[in-house]
Amino acid sequence: MNQIINKYVEQFNASLKETELTSVVDTQLEESMHYSLFANGKRIRPSLLLMTLSMLNTDIENGMETAKALEMIHTYSLIHDDLPAMDNDDFRRGIKTNHKVYGDATAILAGDALLTKAFELITKDNKLSAEDKVKLIRLLSESAGHHGMVGGQVLDMNSENKDITLDTLRKIHRYKTGALIRFAIIAACTIAKVDSKTFLLLDSFSQQLGLIFQIKDDLLDIEGDFDKTGKIASDETNNKSTYISLLGKANTKIALEQHVNQANYLLEQLQDKYNIEELKAITKLVANREN
Amino acid sequence: MNQIINKYVEQFNASLKETELTSVVDTQLEESMHYSLFANGKRIRPSLLLMTLSMLNTDIENGMETAKALEMIHTYSLIHDDLPAMDNDDFRRGIKTNHKVYGDATAILAGDALLTKAFELITKDNKLSAEDKVKLIRLLSESAGHHGMVGGQVLDMNSENKDITLDTLRKIHRYKTGALIRFAIIAACTIAKVDSKTFLLLDSFSQQLGLIFQIKDDLLDIEGDFDKTGKIASDETNNKSTYISLLGKANTKIALEQHVNQANYLLEQLQDKYNIEELKAITKLVANREN
Repeated sequence: MNQIINKYVEQFNASLKETELTSVVDTQLEESMHYSLFANGKRIRPSLLLMTLSMLNTDIENGMETAKALEMIHTYSLIHDDLPAMDNDDFRRGIKTNHKVYGDATAILAGDALLTKAFELITKDNKLSAEDKVKLIRLLSESAGHHGMVGGQVLDMNSENKDITLDTLRKIHRYKTGALIRFAIIAACTIAKVDSKTFLLLDSFSQQLGLIFQIKDDLLDIEGDFDKTGKIASDETNNKSTYISLLGKANTKIALEQHVNQANYLLEQLQDKYNIEELKAITKLVANREN
Repeated sequence: MNQIINKYVEQFNASLKETELTSVVDTQLEESMHYSLFANGKRIRPSLLLMTLSMLNTDIENGMETAKALEMIHTYSLIHDDLPAMDNDDFRRGIKTNHKVYGDATAILAGDALLTKAFELITKDNKLSAEDKVKLIRLLSESAGHHGMVGGQVLDMNSENKDITLDTLRKIHRYKTGALIRFAIIAACTIAKVDSKTFLLLDSFSQQLGLIFQIKDDLLDIEGDFDKTGKIASDETNNKSTYISLLGKANTKIALEQHVNQANYLLEQLQDKYNIEELKAITKLVANREN
């Protein structure tokens, strides 16, 4: 994405490559899990976790296994999302989706195995106390399950072809994409054992960042296609409500700016104590990215 | 199933009904999770866990959340197994499968949510230490993931329409069905903090019980009728190797008897210390069941 996060991405990828993904069962399953784990992911979530730890003056290795767990859960959600029964996507990040390479059945099971592996990884972390592992597994399962990401996905599905309010749209995003972004930040807070004021500020910041991420996604969905190819954007084809369909493009851009300002304001409350420059920079990157 | 396990099933079902399955996301997802959790399951795995705890003179409430987690993982695996992309089953236990009621997309996500919820439940258990929770989550993720159940499912899939050896068939069963049955027993050993000799004996017993379970399944698949099993014989239709296709029916029945004898022999090593009658009885039940 950019130099600011590159150092985290590189360290993360190097460590993820070392993660054992074999078993005595000896099947193609692990190849399928590996395929999607290394399918050109931008690594935004694990980088956010490591970057926040670094800001909190904590060794980022203390968060490495949790960052891998987070990326595994994000990856499984993409594999299942792309299935014919869900979004039916043949390509993601320029390469074939998991089920187009390994078939639907293996893709379902590779997703299941990655989700399961995420929790296994945290239990095996040799840098964290049992208490911290339990806290992190609890936060991660709440963020990923029916209270969080999966709940948001169902709400999103049930909202297709319907007129929804801006409140409902915010709710979808808060859970569907926001929950794992929030986890990245509050997992770092948990590992670094921050005080409650810092926790609250960073938790609020993470929620702003989640909205920025999603609003920019909606803008990219119409700008990417419209400006370059003149094709109809996929959200419109799928009859999905977006910030643009609800607010209009100009107001969506204003909303994006407001959330960026709010995110920066929250970070600035911490600047006497911590170096907030990297988190400010990633906020800017997420808001201005081109893909 | 029978009086011996009924008291555990009743206590388990009563406790499971109290488990909160709602969220602020407010979707049909929880209804779908609930549907399969209460779809006439025989509760063999959680009952085994509770029964083993009872034998080990430990309050079964100490294993209740882990038993629920185990049943949630078993349930999610059935939901995903029944999908059109996998076994494409319309009925299970005499009622419609999850995807026939809620659609494929919701069924995939309900499975994902149940798998995730399993780990959340253990983290929230207020009777276990953090150390025990981490041990149990590690055992459960290893038993359920690519090292265990999911690995076995892929191996099973890859063996369809192929001639396989008895060794491969045993390997499939050891992981596909054996891993969760083993978990039921060794989770109880972990919670009861047994000595290593007891652990080894009960671990070996659990592996015999898993084989008994599967061999009987194969026999029921050719002998059983729909009224009792609630499913249509499918191994032959799916070109799956079974104990019967590899050994013949008579030898399969002999193998079943041998494993029952071995299971009883292992339990008898513990009879000076524990009351082994319930585990002996459930072994007999599993070997003689009609569905």
